[in-house]
Amino acid sequence: MTISTRLTVLLGVRHPVLLAPMDVVADGKLAALVSGAGGFGILGGGYGDETWLTRELDAAGDARIGVGFITWSMAKNPRLLALALERRPAAIMLSFGDVGPHADKIKRMGARLICQVQTLAQARDAVACGADVLVAQGAEGGGHSVSRSTFPFVPAVVDAAPDVPVVAAGGVADGRGLAAALMLGADGVLMGTRFYASTEAAGSQAAKERIVAASGDQTIRSILFDIARRNVWPAPYTGRVLRNAFSEKWRGREAELMQHQDAEAARYNAARMAGDFDTAAVIAGEAVDLIGDIAPAAEIVRRTVEHAEVLLAGSSNRYRVVARA
Amino acid sequence: MTISTRLTVLLGVRHPVLLAPMDVVADGKLAALVSGAGGFGILGGGYGDETWLTRELDAAGDARIGVGFITWSMAKNPRLLALALERRPAAIMLSFGDVGPHADKIKRMGARLICQVQTLAQARDAVACGADVLVAQGAEGGGHSVSRSTFPFVPAVVDAAPDVPVVAAGGVADGRGLAAALMLGADGVLMGTRFYASTEAAGSQAAKERIVAASGDQTIRSILFDIARRNVWPAPYTGRVLRNAFSEKWRGREAELMQHQDAEAARYNAARMAGDFDTAAVIAGEAVDLIGDIAPAAEIVRRTVEHAEVLLAGSSNRYRVVARA
Repeated sequence: MTISTRLTVLLGVRHPVLLAPMDVVADGKLAALVSGAGGFGILGGGYGDETWLTRELDAAGDARIGVGFITWSMAKNPRLLALALERRPAAIMLSFGDVGPHADKIKRMGARLICQVQTLAQARDAVACGADVLVAQGAEGGGHSVSRSTFPFVPAVVDAAPDVPVVAAGGVADGRGLAAALMLGADGVLMGTRFYASTEAAGSQAAKERIVAASGDQTIRSILFDIARRNVWPAPYTGRVLRNAFSEKWRGREAELMQHQDAEAARYNAARMAGDFDTAAVIAGEAVDLIGDIAPAAEIVRRTVEHAEVLLAGSSNRYRVVARA
Repeated sequence: MTISTRLTVLLGVRHPVLLAPMDVVADGKLAALVSGAGGFGILGGGYGDETWLTRELDAAGDARIGVGFITWSMAKNPRLLALALERRPAAIMLSFGDVGPHADKIKRMGARLICQVQTLAQARDAVACGADVLVAQGAEGGGHSVSRSTFPFVPAVVDAAPDVPVVAAGGVADGRGLAAALMLGADGVLMGTRFYASTEAAGSQAAKERIVAASGDQTIRSILFDIARRNVWPAPYTGRVLRNAFSEKWRGREAELMQHQDAEAARYNAARMAGDFDTAAVIAGEAVDLIGDIAPAAEIVRRTVEHAEVLLAGSSNRYRVVARA
């Protein structure tokens, strides 16, 4: 069995499960593995490094994948988008910024335009720009977002864009999340943190182990880690990370951290290199509660879909639809 | 048809739909109407006013309802709990504070103990205190909460308390939300804002109309309105309201507002009395997007359950579970 939706038809994939284009972590190998397992892998083009992008597009080989960009960052160097489009990816995913200047270029090359949105206003703009897919991203997700939450935001986007397949993102980490997203009217899900904690993700083992061990009570949305890596995003974006000694020391003292940026950025960068996650942030979402192991990416796709199928078939024993007394 | 869960069995109700005990808004009449429609009405005992509570318990008559309290506030005047228990309510719901000192008293009187929790740590404490039901409340809900989000928080609470029925709250306003909550492992839902915009709720017509007109993009979580009504809650609670001229003027300037508290509190109180919601806050959640009318409470229960039944029966055409190619 599998779950067929407008999204699976549009993207030509078997399962409505997308890999979030996590900067650096979602590399060519991981994207290819998720696509190979029947989902849809999206390469984390991130802030854009031509060398990295070329290498990882090579690594993905002839796998049918998408490429994701942080729009406001890519816009400073549109050569990155051209580089990606030369490979004829199945889709380009744009998040965090104005889609307008890039939409035609993407669609002319035959790639599907996937727009990740964090507000209803953005969703409407993306549809006007010709988005083929909307990813409705709640702020419970790891990394950058705005402030809407997945549970009420997804159906609101579905209502605002009834003709466009909608993907739920933020807080999705298992088959329960996929089944719930479909009930909310979505056509699929996009998972980040769950795939970060995969055997093959290009992140450090120590970071993956922190994700498995963490409670969702321990995440925080802030710009502290952006200040520390000298990479403060334009408003209104903030990012969710696991709380650690660094965030506890500086939270609420953002301005002061900026005053100490030279020294702190050097320390922070050294900590990142050393894999010291008491200082460096592990970028992860609230769904860490639902992640109990570091598993192969293909296994994550399989588990998610199979559990959702069981739930959708109504064979869960948690509720019964019964004749009214 | 109807939906049977551990919750409906435990509370002895027909539908797994609970009325949030919204301070003042969820009065005796509204609670009785929700129970009369097969859901479970919970009176908004709020900050506790003996005269109001007595009158509204009288108004509910012999309807089978619950009574909800803001725990830290009720703890200052436990006479309120005694007043409620004298009426032998089907349940007492405690939110926002330490359950321990009150649990035995409630259970000895044969009332079910419903504990609303906002973190996993609170969920574990509530189970240890003998909670019969956990309400897992996401911060997308209207009014006070902490920072967890419904979509990932509900399954985390379900996993942490597998033997206790769990109710999803925050961002739920329709049948999609009920069906999704069941997929996440919950046994039912609790709705506030949706019932605020009911014909019978004890709120002003102007506030209800703002809820219907608002977008979820326009809500904000803050303590501005608590400062303005001289009612700042203990940490970590903040409250979600619709943004208005007052919140836009003062956001990020909480300390300054406190410095002007005498004058501003008087102005704010006058605005509340006058129904001026450019100054007074409309306490509402992100799910305002999903609320398109002011409807009778019984109709809200009926619509929610009937739509969820359709979705759970798989007769939605948005997805199909099909044999794998």
